[in-house]
Amino acid sequence: MRTAIISGTFDPITVGHRNIITRASRLFERVVVAVSVNSAKNNLLPDEIRLESVKASVEKLQNVQVELCEGLLADFCKNYENPVIVRGARSGGDFDYERSLYVINKGLSDLETVILPADNHFIHISSTYARELIKYDKNLAGTVPDGAICVIYPWLKNRR
Amino acid sequence: MRTAIISGTFDPITVGHRNIITRASRLFERVVVAVSVNSAKNNLLPDEIRLESVKASVEKLQNVQVELCEGLLADFCKNYENPVIVRGARSGGDFDYERSLYVINKGLSDLETVILPADNHFIHISSTYARELIKYDKNLAGTVPDGAICVIYPWLKNRR
Amino acid sequence: MRTAIISGTFDPITVGHRNIITRASRLFERVVVAVSVNSAKNNLLPDEIRLESVKASVEKLQNVQVELCEGLLADFCKNYENPVIVRGARSGGDFDYERSLYVINKGLSDLETVILPADNHFIHISSTYARELIKYDKNLAGTVPDGAICVIYPWLKNRR
Amino acid sequence: MRTAIISGTFDPITVGHRNIITRASRLFERVVVAVSVNSAKNNLLPDEIRLESVKASVEKLQNVQVELCEGLLADFCKNYENPVIVRGARSGGDFDYERSLYVINKGLSDLETVILPADNHFIHISSTYARELIKYDKNLAGTVPDGAICVIYPWLKNRR
Amino acid sequence: MRTAIISGTFDPITVGHRNIITRASRLFERVVVAVSVNSAKNNLLPDEIRLESVKASVEKLQNVQVELCEGLLADFCKNYENPVIVRGARSGGDFDYERSLYVINKGLSDLETVILPADNHFIHISSTYARELIKYDKNLAGTVPDGAICVIYPWLKNRR
Amino acid sequence: MRTAIISGTFDPITVGHRNIITRASRLFERVVVAVSVNSAKNNLLPDEIRLESVKASVEKLQNVQVELCEGLLADFCKNYENPVIVRGARSGGDFDYERSLYVINKGLSDLETVILPADNHFIHISSTYARELIKYDKNLAGTVPDGAICVIYPWLKNRR
Repeated sequence: MRTAIISGTFDPITVGHRNIITRASRLFERVVVAVSVNSAKNNLLPDEIRLESVKASVEKLQNVQVELCEGLLADFCKNYENPVIVRGARSGGDFDYERSLYVINKGLSDLETVILPADNHFIHISSTYARELIKYDKNLAGTVPDGAICVIYPWLKNRR
Repeated sequence: MRTAIISGTFDPITVGHRNIITRASRLFERVVVAVSVNSAKNNLLPDEIRLESVKASVEKLQNVQVELCEGLLADFCKNYENPVIVRGARSGGDFDYERSLYVINKGLSDLETVILPADNHFIHISSTYARELIKYDKNLAGTVPDGAICVIYPWLKNRR
Repeated sequence: MRTAIISGTFDPITVGHRNIITRASRLFERVVVAVSVNSAKNNLLPDEIRLESVKASVEKLQNVQVELCEGLLADFCKNYENPVIVRGARSGGDFDYERSLYVINKGLSDLETVILPADNHFIHISSTYARELIKYDKNLAGTVPDGAICVIYPWLKNRR
Repeated sequence: MRTAIISGTFDPITVGHRNIITRASRLFERVVVAVSVNSAKNNLLPDEIRLESVKASVEKLQNVQVELCEGLLADFCKNYENPVIVRGARSGGDFDYERSLYVINKGLSDLETVILPADNHFIHISSTYARELIKYDKNLAGTVPDGAICVIYPWLKNRR
Repeated sequence: MRTAIISGTFDPITVGHRNIITRASRLFERVVVAVSVNSAKNNLLPDEIRLESVKASVEKLQNVQVELCEGLLADFCKNYENPVIVRGARSGGDFDYERSLYVINKGLSDLETVILPADNHFIHISSTYARELIKYDKNLAGTVPDGAICVIYPWLKNRR
Repeated sequence: MRTAIISGTFDPITVGHRNIITRASRLFERVVVAVSVNSAKNNLLPDEIRLESVKASVEKLQNVQVELCEGLLADFCKNYENPVIVRGARSGGDFDYERSLYVINKGLSDLETVILPADNHFIHISSTYARELIKYDKNLAGTVPDGAICVIYPWLKNRR
């Protein structure tokens, strides 16, 4: 049995991320989504909101679990059986970056990486764009999964 | 159970191809290597030599079988249970091309594709380069798997 | 008044080409589609079939006319008032190539070029792919405009 | 009549930006340059100086007006008749990014985008480079339009 | 003393090639231009014309000599003292290709490669473009060095 | 005699940087490594530690000296005889960026630039990755030269 590990900041999770997670859940017996905790990076959404919104986005996928991940991904993967890193890529530039990470993770812990090419529908969607929508008070539907929106909107409202 | 389908012209197979096949054989229960038959394309090596040299390159991998493939890959995949296309990519340009093929194969038969990023050791190796070596009578060791060399050299000798 | 000039081999025209022509017809008063005649290039479809299939694809667009173009595009453009070259691009690689052509056409005849980025729906579609479909006797619907299919199919049938 | 909308931070405007604005003014009846106000982004030059220096750079172009733009570009465009977004791109990487923005703006408000490929003379020029010149007290001539320099230099002097 | 080796098909030599040769002649004590003889490749110009037109293009550069090169470049380089391969690159795609060649030549004969980035003036110029100009009987001035034109034109005239 | 100038932030120096410096020291009579002082950029390591760790990494190379560099590189180069800028590049994206810098430095002071393509072994290594290792207290061996590690570790220990 292989465990697919999908990591990201998910600030916020997008429908593109969810597509990658869904496709991985069909390819591998078990999927673990690792939500990165990174104190240095200036995230818009706090750790708990990012964790809850990813959970809410994938709750219908039986073989997917969501965890916070501190430290290097290579260390996180050691907690799982036969881990394989799964990443999405939208463009050649994305791929070049992912290939470097693959070489690094292979060197650190002999970890394998598989890359899922983004579907045409999601190729322009990014967390950066979703944050722009939040900043200008625009509708997140179609960009962020509905489950995640139900977590993010109340938090945004309280913050004001 | 998923069946990984790895297709190519393998004119000739390189150590880069074999690396992708080996990695796929660890990720998936079963791997089928599809050696493309393409009468239009002007291959250096005939179908039988390409088939035999791929077979000789992967004979130690228990869960890998090698077949000739005529016609569209999407049709070939229909013969297998839960097929998933596996491809290697070395650069951003490779990836952009593979992503187009993914979208096409997904549209034709709802086929999934996973891309394995090339290892640093193999990033400069291509069949084009191997054919240059053959043309100038250079040593193929380190570029083409040893098993394949044992198939290709006698054929080259006979041809002269 | 500006005349948009859209050139290509259209071997065959795809729904991606038609999308670019349609968008150009909304941006500019008049659009001329230039179907390249190139005796050296080994086209699948003869000049007349390519011309007719482009015409059939755009017949509902009032301000679009279709012509055969021999020789350099820069010379062809001299026949029109205030010409501007319109091109589609799907990827960064496409763009780099189009930018070279722009610099050349600007140098030859002070011609301006505008590039329309491809829609997500069409980003994987190319004439190369359409020719593969023709080769393996697959359905062209969704890849080639319906009007063009009605021109291409009878010709293919007769050829056999 | 189409209105070309060219947006940017213009921190500062470069001769490359001015070239794109000039070319757009020949292609379209009317051009509106939208100088982005973005409180989050740490601009070197304040909003007023950026607005004035763009105005000073294009004052000879009769059909060009310059405005500050707060919020999403798609909203700004709603104020104009038949808007079309015009962008410059220097490289494949630039283009990939612009294509994403196109898809987003098309989705938000059905906005069309045309991309003008940069001339060879301007392909290496960027606001980042101009800011480096400012930082090290170098001559801006040839990098920033003369009109803009006359706005920026006095402000820089006062700041010290 | 290092010998810079600049190889190419030069079918025909362009002003971009000459720029790279000139810059190399300032960086290294001695430059050898290797004009590739490749019977398989379908060149427009015969070996002798390509050789003579390169010679005519660089005759004013004292430390540059021009030779025909058969076989692998790595073998050709063995004839020279302290050889270093010099290549020009215009774009990221060019560079990726050159990097592969570097790794191959380093592996074959421990050869070093240095890449000179193309000047803006030459970034759109290629032998492919020059061949288009020849095909349509256009003026080569500004694309092919004057010396080379004096070799190519008489040959073209005789051929007709 | 040419002086190769290799500049960078070296925050920290990597084995990839050292490889470029070593190769440059074989190509040119003299190499000057310019360690950039940039008060605006938020470096992890202070100027002195970066300077000392570069010195410790190249002490065996006889013709290499290391200096701090304030201000524009083009100005720094004026202190040296026949300077030529040497840069490494790992990918097409790197190259596009380096080409812009070349055009700028050529324009400012008629400076030549040569680019050394990265070896396969170093293609995934960057200062960003090295800083991640430092952040998570991982072993720097294999990523940062041993000499530099001996300078960086004591400083890191003292900082805590």
